[in-house]
Order: sequence, then structure tokens, then C-alpha cells
Amino acid sequence: MVAAIDVDVHHAVPGISALFPHLPDRWIDYCVEGRIEGFAPAFYPPGMPLSARPGARPAAGPPGSDVDLLRDRVLDGPGAAVAVLNCLYAVGALHNTDWAGALASAVNDWQAATWLDADPRLRAAIVVVPDDPAGAAAEIERCAADPRFVQVLLPAQTTTPLGRRVHRPIYAAAERAGLPVAIHPGVAGANALSPVGWPSHYIEDYANAALAIQSQLTSLVAEGVFTEHPGLRVVLLESGVTWLPPLMWRFDKNWKALRREVPWVDRPPSQVIREHVRFAIAPFDGPVDPPRDWIDRFLTQVGSVELLLYASDHPHWHDRDPHEALLDHLSPAERERVLRANAAELYRLDVPEVTR
Amino acid sequence: MVAAIDVDVHHAVPGISALFPHLPDRWIDYCVEGRIEGFAPAFYPPGMPLSARPGARPAAGPPGSDVDLLRDRVLDGPGAAVAVLNCLYAVGALHNTDWAGALASAVNDWQAATWLDADPRLRAAIVVVPDDPAGAAAEIERCAADPRFVQVLLPAQTTTPLGRRVHRPIYAAAERAGLPVAIHPGVAGANALSPVGWPSHYIEDYANAALAIQSQLTSLVAEGVFTEHPGLRVVLLESGVTWLPPLMWRFDKNWKALRREVPWVDRPPSQVIREHVRFAIAPFDGPVDPPRDWIDRFLTQVGSVELLLYASDHPHWHDRDPHEALLDHLSPAERERVLRANAAELYRLDVPEVTR
Repeated sequence: MVAAIDVDVHHAVPGISALFPHLPDRWIDYCVEGRIEGFAPAFYPPGMPLSARPGARPAAGPPGSDVDLLRDRVLDGPGAAVAVLNCLYAVGALHNTDWAGALASAVNDWQAATWLDADPRLRAAIVVVPDDPAGAAAEIERCAADPRFVQVLLPAQTTTPLGRRVHRPIYAAAERAGLPVAIHPGVAGANALSPVGWPSHYIEDYANAALAIQSQLTSLVAEGVFTEHPGLRVVLLESGVTWLPPLMWRFDKNWKALRREVPWVDRPPSQVIREHVRFAIAPFDGPVDPPRDWIDRFLTQVGSVELLLYASDHPHWHDRDPHEALLDHLSPAERERVLRANAAELYRLDVPEVTR
Repeated sequence: MVAAIDVDVHHAVPGISALFPHLPDRWIDYCVEGRIEGFAPAFYPPGMPLSARPGARPAAGPPGSDVDLLRDRVLDGPGAAVAVLNCLYAVGALHNTDWAGALASAVNDWQAATWLDADPRLRAAIVVVPDDPAGAAAEIERCAADPRFVQVLLPAQTTTPLGRRVHRPIYAAAERAGLPVAIHPGVAGANALSPVGWPSHYIEDYANAALAIQSQLTSLVAEGVFTEHPGLRVVLLESGVTWLPPLMWRFDKNWKALRREVPWVDRPPSQVIREHVRFAIAPFDGPVDPPRDWIDRFLTQVGSVELLLYASDHPHWHDRDPHEALLDHLSPAERERVLRANAAELYRLDVPEVTR
């Protein structure tokens, strides 16, 4: 069977009490007294169809909370050799930095004890608090001692753009640990969910989901994060990828006029992106049944099939399966790169081309 | 003549070209190409009466831009032995950290060359960029080598509350240099000017001016800045002081119920404030002709006359003169503390009680 590395799988904290074994007494008291039930992200309400594809809803608990079901649906069934778990617990939305930091550490310890110990094919992202860069750096260093943590997870909506100087300790720590930084839709801080203010409806937030990611990509390149941290790699998750050619075009065009403002960007932004950034293909935002000439044009525009990473986004249910949407239309060599080789290189995973 | 130390005097950058001798070529080009005229604060439009009391408007340039006029009106006339200049240039409002940092350094060098060199009775505050704490710390260290810089200046409106962890390098640098941190109405970042959103009119901004300062005071105490930096002193400027008793009352009351959340606040917040914070008395927001029993009650509530610092706020024109509003109603010993002794201790200034 052709091996796959699934870089975006979601597991869920079933309730705050699941974290109590990993939380100091002070915060357990705080939860009990405040009747705090947890910080599951508001943008995936457990009962909504979007939150769980058919068959992915466990008998009890929210989608993504059952290890056996996830193992069956992500690993054994589709045959992924490795799956990277990205926990969307909304710790970054808390304004109390100590509380957020304690929760992030508890989530990471819970990931190791409840998930990583349950199956050797699972890997996880380190949950950190973006508004506490020094604390986030310490948490990265702490968790990176366990090689099953293969990346750092940041939310796409942040208090300030992720390229700005205050965030640098996070990238320094990730670079030191040899871990990519993944950015996934999610919220830290309290900025409006769109650049024009607060939308009224969930549907607006979903439709706009790729906008914050694009702003972060622009910020990381323009502020010189990759110049300061040449070993850093960034992974953009669950935000599509076909917006990348127009963004690259505009970014390169404006760089020609305004590069004096950002002298550390010493080559076209599109080239910096190609060298440092990878993109998960779920959900794939391309045309239905893309003809080969569309795929050729798209790959030419983004620069290489090496930028793309396979992801199922299990248990979320967006649209077509990534095989149907993209992978089935690629050549076998391209498919193998997207399914396995690109992620194996990025995460330094020893996954042979064919398993079982 | 009884000596006075005037802790809040405003001088003005007459135009951006005044800073060119202190700016790198890169930024001079940027100003010339962009037709940038400067960053005088929008809340003191030069032509408005509030911006200059009678007699404080120079023949050319904005109020506060003429050294001789300021010397006559602040030092020679009223007889202040020392005046502390606080430059309200809006560098913190710029989103480009490099540009803001270059401007802050230029303003500081301009202050030294144009003002501090002009009269030995002048002192100045170090202008820094609150959104770049590491850069601000470096600028504090650079300027503190000149003992005529006697405090660090931060704006009251900031991107995040000043107690939050990202700002700590600023306090560490100020504490190391032995300099107080002054907070003055002004804007960094782009938060709405009130906690309920953007007001329509200047008058709303002025009327609310003391609200941001109160939030900063609450944040500094609650986040434990004074626990981490026991040598730090903070000076609140141009924001009144009679709101302090009700804030202290509420803060102490809530501390009794919620102190477990902030265990590092190991004594009532009012006590932390009394130990670490000082308040300029211009403009004084008390009653007209305060009777002695009102003054006694006010001083009992704030805890000590030692919290108060004389300021003229020249050239701004708010209301009654601080002598008429408060000082004339104090005992000679109290008056001497507010006029001179409190500031002499805070800034370690060797100013004898009587001059000339």
C-alpha cells in the first residue's frame, strides 16, 4: 500500500476534566468554582454536520474525542502511515496568560498520555500561547524533548501579525528544536474576525477563513522572519492553496516597487515562500475534476508540487475527498510527493514509500 | 524663592526636518518621497486654544517649539529650578517598528542637542516604542548614559495593557537605569480611543482622557509588574488624581475577593500604588476653592501628600493654574513636598529648598 502522511487530523478534548490530571490544583479549583466546561473552538460546534463527516461521530463525546474511532478512520482504513494531530483547543483566546499557559501545557501532556501513547503512528503539534512568546518558547523546548511532537501550532487570528517582532522567541525556539510552525484557522486575542469588522454569521467566518492565513504569510515574509530564522519552516493548514498564485503575483509586483522598505527581503517574496512554506491540501479549493492543463498551470504558478502536503482534516467535513479533488489527477510521482515524500522531508519522518 | 520641579512640560518638534540631522539617510528619503510632515499628536492641534495658553504661542512654529519662550515661561518666570520635558511625538502610533524606532532615537538625540544643551535646568523623558519592548529597552540603555534623561515616556493608549508580559523588558531596563516610567495621554497601536469603541468628537477623547490611565494603573498592579520590579516607579501625567480614591476603593475591595487569581499582589493594591506610583497635579480635577476639610479627606484617601508632583503642563491650557487649584490651599510643608521634595526624591535631583 502506498504510504501517506496525514498532516492535519483533529482530536478533541472531551471536557475540561480530561485535563485535570495535567493541571495544577489552583486551576482545577478555578474551573470547578467557575463551572468552566472547556474551550472547544466555537467554529466547530459538535452537533453541526461540518464538525464530523459521516461515520466520524463517536457514541459519546464530541467528534475527534475517541482514539479507536480516529485510529480506524484515519490510520487503519485509509492506510496513513503517520498522522499529525492538531488540537484546536482555544487556549490563545484566553486573556489571562498564566491560565492560558497552564492550559496549553496540560493539553500537551494530555496529548502525549492519551493519544501519542495509544498508537505509534500518531504525532502531535505543540499547543502554545501566541500572546506569551517567552512562555511559548519555554513550552516548545519542554515538549520538543519528546520526538513525537513534530510541529508548533499557532492560530491564524492573532492579536498582532505573526511576523511582528514580539513573536520572534517562538520562531527561535522552533528553529532550535528543528520543528516547523503550523498555522491553522483559530483565534487568539480579540481582533475582529475580518479586516472590515465583526461579521454576523458563522458562514462569513468560514468563507473568509483563508484571509487571515494570507495576512500571516505576508507578515512573516515582509517582516523578515525567514531572514532571521533561515532554518524555519511554516505549514499552512486547512486554508486552501489556490489563492497562492494571485497572492504571490501581487506580493512580487509590490516588492519590486517597495522592496527598499523591507531590505531584508532580498529575493522575490514568492521565492521566500517556496523555500520556507508548505500548504496542506484539505480542503482543496480548486475546480471540480481539474483537467491536466489546469494542474500544470497551477503547479507552474506555485512553483513546485513540493509545496503541497496531504491532509484529511478528519473529522471535519468540508467538501470532496482530497483524492477526488486533487490527488487522483496527479501523476504517480507527484502523488507520492504530496502523499508522503514532502511531509517525510519536512518532519524528518522515516516512512518508506510502500507499507504493509 | 521657593524652588519647584515642574515634571510635565511639553516641547514640540517643529517639523520632521528638524529631526533630519538625527535620522539615517534611508528615513530622510522616506520622508521626502512620502511628503511626510511629521507626527505631532492629533489631540493638540496647534491652532486650538487648548494647545497654548495665552502668551505661550511663539511667533513661528507650533506651541512648545521655541526654547527661549519656554525658558521664560516655565523656568525664569515661575522660577522652576528644573523642568522635565515630555515630548508627545506620536512615534508609538506607527506600525512600522523600524521606522518608529528610528524616529524615537532621532527625537531623543534632538531633545539632547536642541533642548538639554540649551539650558542646564532642563531634563527630558526618553521616547520609546511600546510595541517593540526589546528595542525600547535598548533605547533606554542608550539614552540613560546621559543623566539629563530622567524618565521613560509611554503613551496611555497602547496595543495591549502595559502590565502584560510582553512589556516587561521596558520595566527591566528602566529599573536597571534607575529611571521612573511616566505614562502620559497619547496613542500607540490602533485600539479604539474608548473601551466602548471610537468616539466621534475630540471632546469625548478629552473627557475620557483619565480612563486609559486608570486601566494602565490597574494592569501594572494586577499583572505583578511591581512584584517583578520592586525598584520601579511610575508617574502618571496630565490625567488628574481625584479619581484615585474611588479606584483604590474598588481595587482593594475586589482584591479581597479575587486575590487568589493574582497571588503576587501580596498586599492591598492601594498600598502597592502608594509605594510605586506618583501623580502630576496638572490639570487638577478637584473642586473650586477646595476647603481644608476636603483636602484633608483627599490626602487621607490617597494616603499621603507624597504621591503628588507639581506640573505646569506648559504650554497646554486646561483650567485653573495648579497653584490656584491646589497648591495655595496646602500647608507650607505640604506645598514644599508637592512643588519640590517629592520630585527631587523620585528623580534624585539635587535641588535645594530655596533658590536664588
